[in-house]
Amino acid sequence: MIGPSWLIDDVLRVENLIRSVAGSSLHPLVAEPALHLIEAGGKRLRPALVLLASRAGESGRRETDLAGAAVEMVHLATLYHDDVIDETETRRGVPTAHAKWGIEVAVLAGDYLFACGCALGADAGGEVPGILARAIARVCEGQIVETANLGDPRREVDDYVDTIRAKTAELFRTSCELGAATSGAPVAHRKALVEYGEHLGLAFQIVDDLLDLIGDPQVTGKTPGTDLREGVFTAPVLLACRRDPALAARLESGDRDLDELLPIVRASGGVEAALDLAALYADRARSALERLPGAEWSSALKMIVDGVLAQVDEKAA
Amino acid sequence: MIGPSWLIDDVLRVENLIRSVAGSSLHPLVAEPALHLIEAGGKRLRPALVLLASRAGESGRRETDLAGAAVEMVHLATLYHDDVIDETETRRGVPTAHAKWGIEVAVLAGDYLFACGCALGADAGGEVPGILARAIARVCEGQIVETANLGDPRREVDDYVDTIRAKTAELFRTSCELGAATSGAPVAHRKALVEYGEHLGLAFQIVDDLLDLIGDPQVTGKTPGTDLREGVFTAPVLLACRRDPALAARLESGDRDLDELLPIVRASGGVEAALDLAALYADRARSALERLPGAEWSSALKMIVDGVLAQVDEKAA
Repeated sequence: MIGPSWLIDDVLRVENLIRSVAGSSLHPLVAEPALHLIEAGGKRLRPALVLLASRAGESGRRETDLAGAAVEMVHLATLYHDDVIDETETRRGVPTAHAKWGIEVAVLAGDYLFACGCALGADAGGEVPGILARAIARVCEGQIVETANLGDPRREVDDYVDTIRAKTAELFRTSCELGAATSGAPVAHRKALVEYGEHLGLAFQIVDDLLDLIGDPQVTGKTPGTDLREGVFTAPVLLACRRDPALAARLESGDRDLDELLPIVRASGGVEAALDLAALYADRARSALERLPGAEWSSALKMIVDGVLAQVDEKAA
Repeated sequence: MIGPSWLIDDVLRVENLIRSVAGSSLHPLVAEPALHLIEAGGKRLRPALVLLASRAGESGRRETDLAGAAVEMVHLATLYHDDVIDETETRRGVPTAHAKWGIEVAVLAGDYLFACGCALGADAGGEVPGILARAIARVCEGQIVETANLGDPRREVDDYVDTIRAKTAELFRTSCELGAATSGAPVAHRKALVEYGEHLGLAFQIVDDLLDLIGDPQVTGKTPGTDLREGVFTAPVLLACRRDPALAARLESGDRDLDELLPIVRASGGVEAALDLAALYADRARSALERLPGAEWSSALKMIVDGVLAQVDEKAA
């Protein structure tokens, strides 16, 4: 996490809260898998958003820390279940809970983290439990819809955007909203923060999807083309298919050969078009920030947007 | 559901709430799996407990209905995930979500129902979100601990009781607590209801475990000995093993032949001892009821205890 030193202090405080709650079970058999992914690291981007957004109101409240920890635990819970669903063997350089303890423990540890997140949200009180619960429901909806659209290269790009809006952007949006809600930020600022969070989340996921295709495995630590092989067709592929119907036909016939398909995606401009789409949402996120006071915290939010786009240059092969 | 007509009316109102929330997604791909198990029926025992317990205070509040619906949705969520973990093909006479839509949708639909339950809890407000979230965490703990103890026939019976206290009794206890909390019942009545709920839950799970072993498949609709085959050693088996070390040795060596093992469990008095244990907890549940006002609702709570024990005679082979 790069940012002002006070932000690092804030995030560390939330990090400690996360660890103490996830590790609070008297049963080591529960605490160990619950802490497993937390101890593997992670950027804590969502808590950082909660904490930065809280600067629009009265920052430093306990409720904000609780909400920040809650959002991260919900995010971690979704990762446990994603890894069960995708049968992922490693994440953040360590074996997944699924690989280490089996499907039973991975499903239940994910459920346990969901519950811990909701308990933290309940402790925060006020609007937090409702905002959080509805966000989780929306994230699940997005993931179910993605599953249902597997293998359709002629899917509308708008449809894809709606899916990632639910699957990913919802939790970014919610992080910003919780920061504003728990700090009693003015309504106009809260609206701007929510808009910022949603568009940041869209840009983030489009870049993530792009790097799944064109990322340098030495840098990303991931096998390229995982989405494509699983029939999850994301922005660059869908945009390429609109320009090159022959590509859509190959994908429909079940062709998943990355070495052959990636040059076609590139040649039809799918990569540039996806980058443009990410840049569009990044711009919207930046525009929303203009409605907030100029301050160190709003500059830090802008740096997060810039950082998301910069990932393409840093991690592309 | 057998009971006074006002209880049936109350439960139907909660049933409608459950259906409207589970079916509220605009995506049929989400609403259909979320409604799947609800539409297959079920006794709605937990909402009935919430509603009956609420009669200790000011009944008829919207918060009580919301809490009743929330508890049932959480219970349903755990069933979706149980079926994924156990690879169960049918439940309540219909294919499981897992069997019908695959593991992805079953895991995510379970998560979605958890979130809907927590959203209902958040709408109820007050103590509800916190009580509910902590109950879910405890249920998951119980299930993880059960998984970790698979295949150990020398496990202490106290250990088994602790596990089912978390895995099953917690949600019964919580149902009673939520009824009392949302209706503003007097503290002494709330305490008695919580104690009732916990002991009812223990009796319920011991009977359920017993019927898994000695139930008549024509009546229960389940294959007998499922727990035993999976290495989940419950009250009758653990109690039999304490009296007959040779049985423990056979189970430890991996013997899972129900036809041979059940007579040994019976001969060593494991079935009677498990029944005695269930009766002990049922008695404690009844004792707790004595601290409540004599009324139609507290009589209905007593009938639920009696009904749990009566299942053994109704369903045993």
